[in-house]
Amino acid sequence: MNLTSLLLLLTVASSPAELRDKAIAGDHVGYEFVTQLTTLFGPRPAGSPAEQKAAHWAADRLRALGFENVHLETFPMSRWIRGDEKVEILSPNPQPVVATALGGAPAAAGVEGEIVAFASMDELIAAPKGSLTGKIAFVDRRTTRMQNGQGYGIAGAARARGPIEAAERGAAGFLLRSIGTDGERRAHTGATHFRDGKVPIPAFAVSSVDADQIGRLLQMGQKVRVRLTSTASLVESQSQNVVADIRGRTDEIVLLGAHLDSWDLGTGAIDDAAGTGIIVGAAKLIADGGKARRTVRVVLYGSEEIGDPQRRPLGGSSYALAHEAELGKHVLTGESDMGADRIYALSLSEPVAASAFGKEALRLLAPIGVLQSRELPRRGGVDVGPLVEKGVPVFVLNQDGSRYFDIHHTAEDTLDKIDRKQFDQNVAAWAALIALAANSDADLREAVK
Amino acid sequence: MNLTSLLLLLTVASSPAELRDKAIAGDHVGYEFVTQLTTLFGPRPAGSPAEQKAAHWAADRLRALGFENVHLETFPMSRWIRGDEKVEILSPNPQPVVATALGGAPAAAGVEGEIVAFASMDELIAAPKGSLTGKIAFVDRRTTRMQNGQGYGIAGAARARGPIEAAERGAAGFLLRSIGTDGERRAHTGATHFRDGKVPIPAFAVSSVDADQIGRLLQMGQKVRVRLTSTASLVESQSQNVVADIRGRTDEIVLLGAHLDSWDLGTGAIDDAAGTGIIVGAAKLIADGGKARRTVRVVLYGSEEIGDPQRRPLGGSSYALAHEAELGKHVLTGESDMGADRIYALSLSEPVAASAFGKEALRLLAPIGVLQSRELPRRGGVDVGPLVEKGVPVFVLNQDGSRYFDIHHTAEDTLDKIDRKQFDQNVAAWAALIALAANSDADLREAVK
Repeated sequence: MNLTSLLLLLTVASSPAELRDKAIAGDHVGYEFVTQLTTLFGPRPAGSPAEQKAAHWAADRLRALGFENVHLETFPMSRWIRGDEKVEILSPNPQPVVATALGGAPAAAGVEGEIVAFASMDELIAAPKGSLTGKIAFVDRRTTRMQNGQGYGIAGAARARGPIEAAERGAAGFLLRSIGTDGERRAHTGATHFRDGKVPIPAFAVSSVDADQIGRLLQMGQKVRVRLTSTASLVESQSQNVVADIRGRTDEIVLLGAHLDSWDLGTGAIDDAAGTGIIVGAAKLIADGGKARRTVRVVLYGSEEIGDPQRRPLGGSSYALAHEAELGKHVLTGESDMGADRIYALSLSEPVAASAFGKEALRLLAPIGVLQSRELPRRGGVDVGPLVEKGVPVFVLNQDGSRYFDIHHTAEDTLDKIDRKQFDQNVAAWAALIALAANSDADLREAVK
Repeated sequence: MNLTSLLLLLTVASSPAELRDKAIAGDHVGYEFVTQLTTLFGPRPAGSPAEQKAAHWAADRLRALGFENVHLETFPMSRWIRGDEKVEILSPNPQPVVATALGGAPAAAGVEGEIVAFASMDELIAAPKGSLTGKIAFVDRRTTRMQNGQGYGIAGAARARGPIEAAERGAAGFLLRSIGTDGERRAHTGATHFRDGKVPIPAFAVSSVDADQIGRLLQMGQKVRVRLTSTASLVESQSQNVVADIRGRTDEIVLLGAHLDSWDLGTGAIDDAAGTGIIVGAAKLIADGGKARRTVRVVLYGSEEIGDPQRRPLGGSSYALAHEAELGKHVLTGESDMGADRIYALSLSEPVAASAFGKEALRLLAPIGVLQSRELPRRGGVDVGPLVEKGVPVFVLNQDGSRYFDIHHTAEDTLDKIDRKQFDQNVAAWAALIALAANSDADLREAVK
């Protein structure tokens, strides 16, 4: 063996299967990344100093890990700041309610009114205009537990549109049974929609236990009067995406996304420090395995969680705009944003699934329990959606969301909820799939045209 | 059969076994009592208007159920009122801490200091005087899960004495890993001791998850600076015991206790609406079963949870004082104050256990899974303790406390945590044991002398 052969042998890329097995053994930097991010910075609300500091820390960390072209891409946005907040039952007897303001909702200086309950958004919408004048509308719908998280989207309509629809019918305030599957005394926040630059009335999510309590009082024939207080505010700020590359031999890009911002109640461990750790862990394994054909780009998005009243582009759309000229070089993308429980299926568009690349991907992932999904990848997620809309091929590694919505957007979203073994399986699936894609010369854009 | 025999037959008391089986079938008023108490009044802090209203409601309810001699016995006390409260990590980066003030702790207008952690109360006590000047002492000890609740008592020493001991060493504030077995993001409140009429420094319990977060930051070599804020206050008030009898044919009394007051965070369902429902349910079954030999007295105590800075007698000791003259007529007592999970053992003093009464009691309870405890009843509990000290014989129906301290003194102490089947078993055990005691002529006082 001559020196050239030896060097070639030493620099040959590890196979996707080898990276997969390394990750399953826990030999990756992903979990450490999540631990430091959630411990050092705690919650990282969109546009906050904590989000900004975390972005600088992440960039430093990625540089130290050998990523290249590491930089921040900033964009303006409105930052919503939770204030002091309180929901109280005033009658039949005073008692506190565990509740939390919806993201974007306005301040409330003790808005009082009687509760009118609706079993669903459809029922609320069926109420005539003016019928809720001075009342507090309460949408009391349960969230169905589903592995693919579909129940969240369905119940979530009331969070997004409820305050606007209730205000149009005259309501002075809006309450929502938390969008969550837990049944605990735990309020789930989340963004609600703006209309004409504002959320028209104070809006809160009450815990499932408190929703039951209100329901019982109504069933006992009591009129339930409540008071809503919040000192929330909106201020002009900025957020940022962190971009970092593992450079390949060509200028083609495989883009991995996750988001750095989080809600303010927990430390954003499952939403979405986990995702950032999974893709950073996978990308670093690929880097250590040897130079690939394509560049693996990690984007840690800012401001995924909350909309902008002026409808300015946030993390995902800012990236798509800023990189419009090079989108043709983006050959595949996917994001990790449903916690850290095991991946059970891979969603690919039909032609990609039928290609040699798709078949090899599924063969690689089968040993770690990942099947071909019957669902299409659709937009792929909030952050990579704007790329997908512009023709970038997308995959989804579907994570088990069965318990995700027990703690999603609550104070319970903390590091201890991450199951290390399942986290490792996520890193393994990403490392194997992305290593395969980065070393492939298959034209996936052509396939999905 | 003549008319007299028929009437005798109709009025003969149901057997303890029959009452037991009725309760197991769910045929009692106990659960409804708990549901109304927790739903209509929510939390019932000692000395609060809610506690007072609940006491009046309970008295009305007991009268409606046919109890006699129903009345309130009031006593003066200091009411501790939780205010707005906040614990924040200031450095290395600002982040909120889920925490709650200990009952009795003073207001804090943003007390700041660096955390010094101790693994136990012993370690704190070993610190020299002056060694904590300006610091925030943090006792970080876990609570051991035990069926009999023993772990609570051991870890609880730090809650009771920690603020005083820390203050003596110069500390500006006190933090405690919540006394609880849950490991969730849930702060457990509870009373701390007064010294010279006050708690010397601000004192909070942080959730187990936040204790871990602080621990990780310290382990990463960070100095952890925190700010403690609370607007808690103490005001002069009063509380009350509700006394209600099922009259027997003699003036001897079997006294059943539980407490109406609760902590302010939850609705006091397991602590101790459950206990009140269990004893009311059992006593009502006995009343419906026919007149017993002895009076069955239900006492729903006020102000069990919190001490008085002036060390005035609260619920349990007020009753013992007010009824000093008739304590000789109290032939047996017990209290229900550890939730609503199943009873697994009966504790009796050795002579009572060896008596015909004791043997019959254990025979009656065996079919519902209650064995003879290896533990003695000791003081029987906080509320009946003052009676026991004055020679009233006591029993303990030991409830399974395995999961009790997961939610004890937290916002999660709500109605949904009561398991109806286990609640029924509690009512069954109390109904059978108390029916037996009320119809017995055994001199238990003589037995325990």
